[in-house]
Formats: sequence, C-alpha cells, structure tokens
Amino acid sequence: MFALSASLLVKEYAVYAKHSGIPEIKTVLGGFIIRRFLGLWTLITKSLGLVLAVASGMWLGKEGPLVHVACCCANLFIKLFPSINNNEARKREVLSAAAASGISVAFGSPIGGVLFSLEQLSYYFPDKTMWQSFVCAMTAAMVLEAFDPFRSGKLVMYQVTYSSVWHGFELVPFVLLGLLGGVYGGLFIKANMWVARWRKSATWLPGPVIQVVAVAILTALLNYPNNYMRAQCSDLVSNLFSECSKLTDDQFGLCKTGAASAGTIILLIFAAVLGFFLAAITFGLQIPAGIILPSMAIGALVGRAIGIIMEIWQHNHPNFIAFRSCEPDVPCITPGTYAIIGAAAALGGVTRMTVSIVVIMFELTGALTYVLPIMVAVMISKWVGDAFSRRGIYESWIHFNEYPYLDNSEEIPIPDIPASQIMTRIEDLVVLTATGHTIASLTAVMEQHPYRGFPVVSDPRDAILLGYISRAELAYILHASTQPPRLLPPETEAFFAHQPLADPRTTLDLRQWMDQTPLTLPRGSRLHLAVSYFQKLGLRYVMFVDRGVLQGLLTKKDVWYVLNGAEETRRTAGRGEPMGGGVAREGGDGEREGLLGVGRGEEEVEVVSPIGDGGSNLL
Amino acid sequence: MFALSASLLVKEYAVYAKHSGIPEIKTVLGGFIIRRFLGLWTLITKSLGLVLAVASGMWLGKEGPLVHVACCCANLFIKLFPSINNNEARKREVLSAAAASGISVAFGSPIGGVLFSLEQLSYYFPDKTMWQSFVCAMTAAMVLEAFDPFRSGKLVMYQVTYSSVWHGFELVPFVLLGLLGGVYGGLFIKANMWVARWRKSATWLPGPVIQVVAVAILTALLNYPNNYMRAQCSDLVSNLFSECSKLTDDQFGLCKTGAASAGTIILLIFAAVLGFFLAAITFGLQIPAGIILPSMAIGALVGRAIGIIMEIWQHNHPNFIAFRSCEPDVPCITPGTYAIIGAAAALGGVTRMTVSIVVIMFELTGALTYVLPIMVAVMISKWVGDAFSRRGIYESWIHFNEYPYLDNSEEIPIPDIPASQIMTRIEDLVVLTATGHTIASLTAVMEQHPYRGFPVVSDPRDAILLGYISRAELAYILHASTQPPRLLPPETEAFFAHQPLADPRTTLDLRQWMDQTPLTLPRGSRLHLAVSYFQKLGLRYVMFVDRGVLQGLLTKKDVWYVLNGAEETRRTAGRGEPMGGGVAREGGDGEREGLLGVGRGEEEVEVVSPIGDGGSNLL
Repeated sequence: MFALSASLLVKEYAVYAKHSGIPEIKTVLGGFIIRRFLGLWTLITKSLGLVLAVASGMWLGKEGPLVHVACCCANLFIKLFPSINNNEARKREVLSAAAASGISVAFGSPIGGVLFSLEQLSYYFPDKTMWQSFVCAMTAAMVLEAFDPFRSGKLVMYQVTYSSVWHGFELVPFVLLGLLGGVYGGLFIKANMWVARWRKSATWLPGPVIQVVAVAILTALLNYPNNYMRAQCSDLVSNLFSECSKLTDDQFGLCKTGAASAGTIILLIFAAVLGFFLAAITFGLQIPAGIILPSMAIGALVGRAIGIIMEIWQHNHPNFIAFRSCEPDVPCITPGTYAIIGAAAALGGVTRMTVSIVVIMFELTGALTYVLPIMVAVMISKWVGDAFSRRGIYESWIHFNEYPYLDNSEEIPIPDIPASQIMTRIEDLVVLTATGHTIASLTAVMEQHPYRGFPVVSDPRDAILLGYISRAELAYILHASTQPPRLLPPETEAFFAHQPLADPRTTLDLRQWMDQTPLTLPRGSRLHLAVSYFQKLGLRYVMFVDRGVLQGLLTKKDVWYVLNGAEETRRTAGRGEPMGGGVAREGGDGEREGLLGVGRGEEEVEVVSPIGDGGSNLL
Repeated sequence: MFALSASLLVKEYAVYAKHSGIPEIKTVLGGFIIRRFLGLWTLITKSLGLVLAVASGMWLGKEGPLVHVACCCANLFIKLFPSINNNEARKREVLSAAAASGISVAFGSPIGGVLFSLEQLSYYFPDKTMWQSFVCAMTAAMVLEAFDPFRSGKLVMYQVTYSSVWHGFELVPFVLLGLLGGVYGGLFIKANMWVARWRKSATWLPGPVIQVVAVAILTALLNYPNNYMRAQCSDLVSNLFSECSKLTDDQFGLCKTGAASAGTIILLIFAAVLGFFLAAITFGLQIPAGIILPSMAIGALVGRAIGIIMEIWQHNHPNFIAFRSCEPDVPCITPGTYAIIGAAAALGGVTRMTVSIVVIMFELTGALTYVLPIMVAVMISKWVGDAFSRRGIYESWIHFNEYPYLDNSEEIPIPDIPASQIMTRIEDLVVLTATGHTIASLTAVMEQHPYRGFPVVSDPRDAILLGYISRAELAYILHASTQPPRLLPPETEAFFAHQPLADPRTTLDLRQWMDQTPLTLPRGSRLHLAVSYFQKLGLRYVMFVDRGVLQGLLTKKDVWYVLNGAEETRRTAGRGEPMGGGVAREGGDGEREGLLGVGRGEEEVEVVSPIGDGGSNLL
C-alpha cells in the first residue's frame, strides 16, 4: 500500500522524484540543466514519496533521496536571491553545500557529508565551497541534534564503542571483506544495469506503478520468513554493528547463547543474497529509493557472518598460531566490527568513494580504533570494483540515462586526435556575416536554425572570426529594436562591425550585443586540450581559428558524444547541429524531451561557468 | 645545545631545512620550482635538525617539518621512475600524496592527512590524487602502527573518552573559545610577521645561529619556572585534553584536589601568553619548526582555563538557570573538552583550515560526541581570523618571502581591467620571424636575450602568430645541427614556415621544434579570464592575438606581480622581461638567487601542467 501510494505520487506529480536523484545531481553540478528536476513539485513528491517508500519496507535507502530533497530546498530558496539565482557558478556552489547537508542529516555525519559532496557529487569544488558546505552541513547537524529525532541525545545513529582493539591476524578477514565488498559492488552494478536495460526493452511489462507494487509484494513475501529481513534496514544495520556485551535489546537474537552457530551464519548469508536481488530490482523503480543503506546492510550481514565464523574458529582452536595474540578469558573476536568493515567495503564497491566512506563510517559508529581496517577494506574494495568496471553505480546510471555528463575524473581515455576531426566545420556551421544583414534576415536565420548562438565572421570568403552572438541576446535586441521607442522597420540594416558611414539612428549596431572576445583554440589543437577547456574552464563551446580565420566549432556535447562512444548516434541525429543537440536527437522518449533545457522556442536558460566570463559561451 | 646544533646543521648544509616548509611546499605544488628544496641534503638536515629542535624544548612543532620530510623522500624516490619524474603533473600528485602521509604519521591521523593535503597544500587536487593520498596516508599509518612508537598499541595519540555529553548551555563558552581562537590566530600572524620583518630589517642583529641560541636560552629561562611549560608540548596537550576521572598520571597536577582554583587558571593563562610570545619569535628562526603543535598547546591552555572557570562557577552556583540541565552528583563540566575545542579553534585561527582540523581533532582524540562543538568553534575562529586578515600563517609567509604563488582560493580581488593593460606588448617582445634567420643569428638572439622562449611571427610588419619555440628546444636543435652528422655551417638558413624551394639538406626547418598551436586569447580579454587560464589550465604564459596578429604576451609571473601589488617592483626590474623575471629581479639576496629555476644559463627545467599539452607553455 505504501509503495503503491509512493509510486502513484511519483507517476502523477513529478517523474523526477523517482530513484535516488544522485546521478541527476551530478549531471546538474557538471553544468547541465534538467528542467523541473529541482522544482517545488519534485520536492513535495519526493518528500512524501520517500516517507511512504521507506515505510513500505522495501530494500531501499533514504540517503540519496534526502540529498535530492536538500538540493530542491536550496534551489527554491535561492530563487529569493537574484544575485545567486542568476549566477550559475554560485548556484552550483549552493547546491553542493545543500548536498552536504543532505548527507549530514541522513547519517548524522556532517564531515562525511562535506566529503561526500566533494568526492561524489561535485564537478567543481573550490576551497570556498568546502567552507560553505562545512557551515551548511554543520548547521543542518545542529538543527537535527536540537530536534533529537532518535531521542538518544546523540547525533550518531549507530554509536558503538568496542572494548577491544583489533589483532594483526584479523587483517586477513578484513582484506577478505574488502574483496567481497568489491565483488558485491561489481556484481550489483552489473545486475542492476541488466535489470534496468531489461525493463526498458521489455515492452510487454506492465506500467511502472504495477512494477512497484509487484516488487513490494515480492519483497514482503521474501522478507517475512527471514528474521533479519523483516525489520527496517536501519535497525538491522544498527544491531549488526553492535558488540554483544553492550547490546541491550537483542531484537535479532544475534547475541543469545548459541547464536554463534552454523545456522545463524547461513541465515545471515541467505539474507545478504536475497537482499542483493531485492535491491537490484528495487533500485531503478519509479519511487524515491537510495542504494546506500541497502548496500550497508548487505555488507554488514556478510561481515557479521564472517565475524561469527572467526569467532567459532577462535573458540574451537584457541591454540592456532594466529590466535596466540588473543588474551584468554576475553572475547577475542568482535563480530560487530566485521559488520562495520563489511558495510564500508560494500559501500565502497558500489559507489567507489573512499575518503568519505571512511569518515561516514566513523562518524556513524565512532569506531575510531578501526579506522585502519576500514581504510584497508575500502581500498581493496575499490580496487576490486574498478576491475569489474570503472563506473560506480551513479556513473552507470548517468551513462544508462545518457545524461551529458563530462566525467572529469581523468579516467576516461581521451582519443589522441586533433579536435578538428570532430568539430563542426565552418562549411556546416550557420555563421552570420558582419555586414549585409537586415533585421528581417537575422530574424529569418533565427527562425530557420534552432542553434543557441551564431559565430560572426567578417565575410563569407575570408571568414575572419569577429565574435559570437547568443540566440538570447540576438532575439532580445531584434525584438527590442522593432518596439517603441526605436521602432525600426524590418529592412533596417544590422551589422556587427564598425561602419563609419552608417547613420546610428536608422541602422542597428549589434557589436555591443556580441561577445567580441570569444575563446578560441588553434586549429591543430589536440582533443584533450579542448576537453580540458571544457572541464576546467567550464566552457560550453570553443571555436577553432587559424590565423584569425574561423575553422569550426566544437561543443561540450560533441565531446560528450565522442567520449561516450555514441559518435554514431550523433551523426544520425543531424551532423550540422552544433548547439542544443539534446532536443534534436531523434526518437527521444517523451520523458527526456526538453531534458536539457536547450531547446528551440523554450525559454533560454543562460548558464555561466565558474570563470564567469561573458556568459554566452559558458554552460 | 640541541638548538645550537640544529641551527648549525641548517646553516651549514641546507638552508631550506629551516622553518616548517609548508609555505614552500604550497608554492611548489602551485607550479613553481624551488631548487634544492626537496633534495637529499635538505632531507638529511631537516630530519636530524628536527629531532634536535624538538629535543631542545623550544616552542615548536614537528608536524609541518614532517610534511616537508615526507615530500623530500617522495621527490628522491620518484627519481627512480623517469615516467613520473619527467611529468610535472604526476610529480605534483605524488608530492600531494606524500604530504598527506606526512600529516598521517605526525598525528596518527590518516584521513586528516588527506584533507590537510587537499585543503591547505594542493593547488590542483583531482579525484585521482585524493585516492592516491588516501592509499599513501593509510600505508603510512599502518607502518606507524606496526612500529608502535608510543607503545600503546594505538595510533591515536591523545585518545580520550569522555563519559559525559555536552549540554546546550556549554555552547556559549565554546563560541567564546572560537572567538578567542580567531583572535589568537589573527594576533599571532601579525606578531609573527612583525618579528619576521623586524628580523629582516634590523641589520645589527647577530647571525641566525646566535639568534636561535638566544631564543633557546630565553625559552629555557621562561619555561622552567612554569610547571606547564617545562614539559614537551605534546605531553602538555595530552594532559590538558584528558578527563580527570580517566587520568592515571597526573603529571601537571591538573586533577589533584584543589586544582580547580584561581591559581591554576592564572598559571594556565600565563603559560598561554608566554607560549604565544615564544612561538611568535621561534617560528621563522633558521631551524626546522612547525606551528601546529604550539598553536594547539596555546589553545588547549586557554580552553582548559575556561573549562576550569566554568567548573568552579557551576560548582558554586549549581542552581543558576543555565546549569539546570546538569545531573546532580555527576561532574557536569569536563574541562578537557574545553581544551580540545580551544586547541581546534586556535589551529583554525592560525591556519584557516576547517574540515581537516575537525577531522584531525577527532582522529586525534576520538571525541566523536564533540564534533559539533568543535565545528562551531572552528567556524567562528575562521570568521574572526578572516576579519583580521585574509591570509593564514602559511599564506602570510608565502607573501613575506615573495614566492610567486598564485592563490586560487578566489578570494583575492582581480582588478577588472583588460589583460592587454599589463601584458608585454609586441613592441617590447623579442619575436622571431619565420624567415630570414640563420643558425648564427638565432644563436645570437639566444645569447642576447635570456627569455625562456620566443614567439614566432610571419614577418615583422603583419605579425601573424605562427607559434612559439622554447629556449630549450631551440638551443637543442641549433646545437645538434652544427654537430655531426649534420654539421651545418652557422650561416645556414633556418626558417619556421613552409619553404617550397628550400633544400632540406642545406637548410634547417625548425617547424617541428616549434609549438605550432600556442594557446591564445583575444586581445580584449579581461584579466580575470587570463588568470583562470593560468589557474585552471596551469599555463605559464598566454599570448594575445587579434585576428591572428600577435599583440602581446602575459606570463603567470606578470599576473602574480600585479595581484600581489608589486607592480612597481616589476617595472623597475626591467619591463621587457617576459620570462624568468625571478632571476632578473634586482637586489635579490643571495639566498633567493636562482630560487625559481628559470634563470639564464642554468639548466632548463621544463615543467608541464596538469593538462599536459606540449610542455613548453606550461609551468
């Protein structure tokens, strides 16, 4: 029922409220715009839907969606401040900070939130953003602490204090947990993406709402018989983490006499395997759903199982050479620590984060003495996971949804070709000449071509680049000139160059509306230089010149297509489309229509980059 | 005696072993080269000197110097791997990772080390570096743990476990501690820089070795009478942090009956004030000396004093409205927590770091419940400190030493002027023409002008930019051509453009040695765009063109001079010096001579930037 309502909500009111939202936030912070993704309706739907989805008992987490909710709030809030709202760079800084506060409240982990935002989400993270995120995450945590939702007086959700330290020999199972975490991450991503592809291609499948209900019923049926899976993920994780001697409420019977038995181990492993499958089919449904908590739960189940194995082994063979360092009469193995390390490793395998996971784990549990084992496990998990696939779960979804996200992790190979090979050549470009245009002819060009802007050259023969005028600026000035007070007729001459003989009252001088210093690269530049222009300077396009003569134009999107191996798609979608390829793509499903907000006829969304130059070049 | 030997060592063997080294590392990571700074002699001297300096009991820390030592080791180690050693971008990544491991072992705080490297040191910190630093810091911590130098089996130096949580009313003194930390930071930087300037200008002062000995004797005299200052800083900090009920060895009498008295408070404050003055004169002497530990000690002293004040107050007025939340018969105030928060605030005030301090403090102490108060205090401390001066202690030293560090924190105001105002105009540039040169004439140009490279234009009248040839490449090919097997005579024609009639056997075609796609900006570009080229793309210079015609050249160093208000210095040092201004500066003292390694006649140091294009443009 809960799942049904959540799914109906999402379907009816805001389709972007589904899923975790983190892939989309990454894309937005990478410099693209997704319409309505951070709007009021998305916020309301996601908040309500998340409550319902979590209450439904399905295998999903609340962390990712909370980040999305925080970003929605921030986006709505900054509409009150035009100075920030109109500056895309500052807007993105605010969103980064909001994301930090989202994780901060989700886990009660302010520092972990800042690092999550830094490591996972943000494309561009200057020192200033770090500091802003820090303040934001801290304030969020303070407010949470003041509300005291867990009635424990503590921010930390799963605080554990272990009375023992770890022994050298335990590094072997810890490394094993790291391996398992990496394998889990790699397999999970493969399974989840396989389900997603299958779901997309299988046309006979019922609608998204039915799917959600089916998965919810399946989850209920599978979960109920298993003691560990019947409860909420967060309760389960909390109990798995805890040390037996400290546990007051042994809900799952993990500490009762005889719990360290083969039966418990099998049940734990079984729960982990079931959880794996349920999470793989749940993540991607049309409800708000995160993947962080399920991964932690699965990792913790496996970790606890291995911990119990070690405990039994040590108990039965106390004289085994590795166990010499154990003190007699004191429990040598603490299965709870294995659960923590397993959870960290599983999280590392799925998301491929490193530093933030370690910080989150120890803000979550306070297990300071276990920092090193956690680090070792996360490191190995990332190595193993990377061996399966370079992409973490969020990057995989970005790739699956074909969001135009230009990965700046420097791990995608950039082909060593001249950029001129993939640029749109001047022959295929719509360029404006400096002279010879009238208001009517310019209007006609704009109506005919949907591009976001036009290069301006001296004349068609020797195409000396003079500047670049964006569609928005051109449309504005053409419209303004034909209205009072100027009331210029459509046949008025319009030019982009100095015309000493022109009468300023009867002609239109467009020079001040043109970016007269567009950024250019020499013609022979390699592609990787162009890519670093896009990545580091935040440009949206760059023009190529040879001794002042325009040679061609390359957009961020062209590069994205090439780097993501979709060269063919692009070519079929119309070769001479340098701008706004997003809407020109053929056969896009309705949902993705207008996704990037760069479409013809739509309100122009002007986006400036961190370097804040001009504005027209920069998305 | 220890101090004397340390100082002699530094003076005799490696002048760069003095000080903390962090300002220099920041400069190096910012893309400049400081000769011998990371050499073998510096390593040996710094290691030995640091041991001696710490043993001398002066008010100095070992953390900064350990970072320097780690970077020296890394620098020497990567000489074994030419593929890294010849790639400046990867070299800097390795140095960032080494810095992380330095802090990791100094504090036993691996995550704090990574964040320190990220927040304080690194100019350019991609995800990959984060991951490398993480592995590096972790390995360092593992090795340290295996050596177990503190014989405690724990990595954490000052582990504390507080039995109580904090109360809402305590936020008031915590905020006060933040304020005090900020004021301390601001004043300390002012005092320290004043001492540094005075020391530089007062010519009657004895040599550096005598100064060190004098300060050491003064320190000994002042420290001995005060119980708190007699011990090593680290012992003091450890005791100040601890909770009385847990303390086993009450070396300083902080917990004995009657310790919570006005006398103790006065003594603590007195020790803090003395420590302030001693640290201010010590940091900057010619011995290896860090500022992190002294700042922590001063903050902890003040914090503990305020903690004791609160304790007495609460004890005497248990019914005061704020103290209602205290439980009876249990100590309500834990002065040790005040010491931790005071230390964090002081560190924040001096270094202006935020996230790394919080993480270091809690890796250092395990005081997880106190994360929020620490964050509040650090935040306020940074605010207050920034009100005194935007520069932290390391930036102040960079400024004082006039290192060419281009701050990328976006907090320095960039004047909104066209870059062409400060570029070296083409009239003042030494340019090569594409034709009309011989080997002899090119050699003459090189001998006459010390610049690191020369723009190549078509011909002097219409100076169409063809490319840029670096001094190193030009020198190499000219030298190679006159040697066997080619043995070209000096009057051989040399050209940079396609010459269809030239005989390749008797002429020299230099095109392949020239960077044929130098990066350019349009003439009218604003300075802030040029600055982001330098900061984000890591360029060393950029040329300005107007429709293909070279207009001028701007170097990173020109920009640095302008941004640091040293415009006048630059002008007097020779206006037409576009390259290698560092050595051309007049009146540089012997110590700074050749500091930047860009000098005439010296071995050319070719430095590539993160984007790794070509190489000749990129420092």
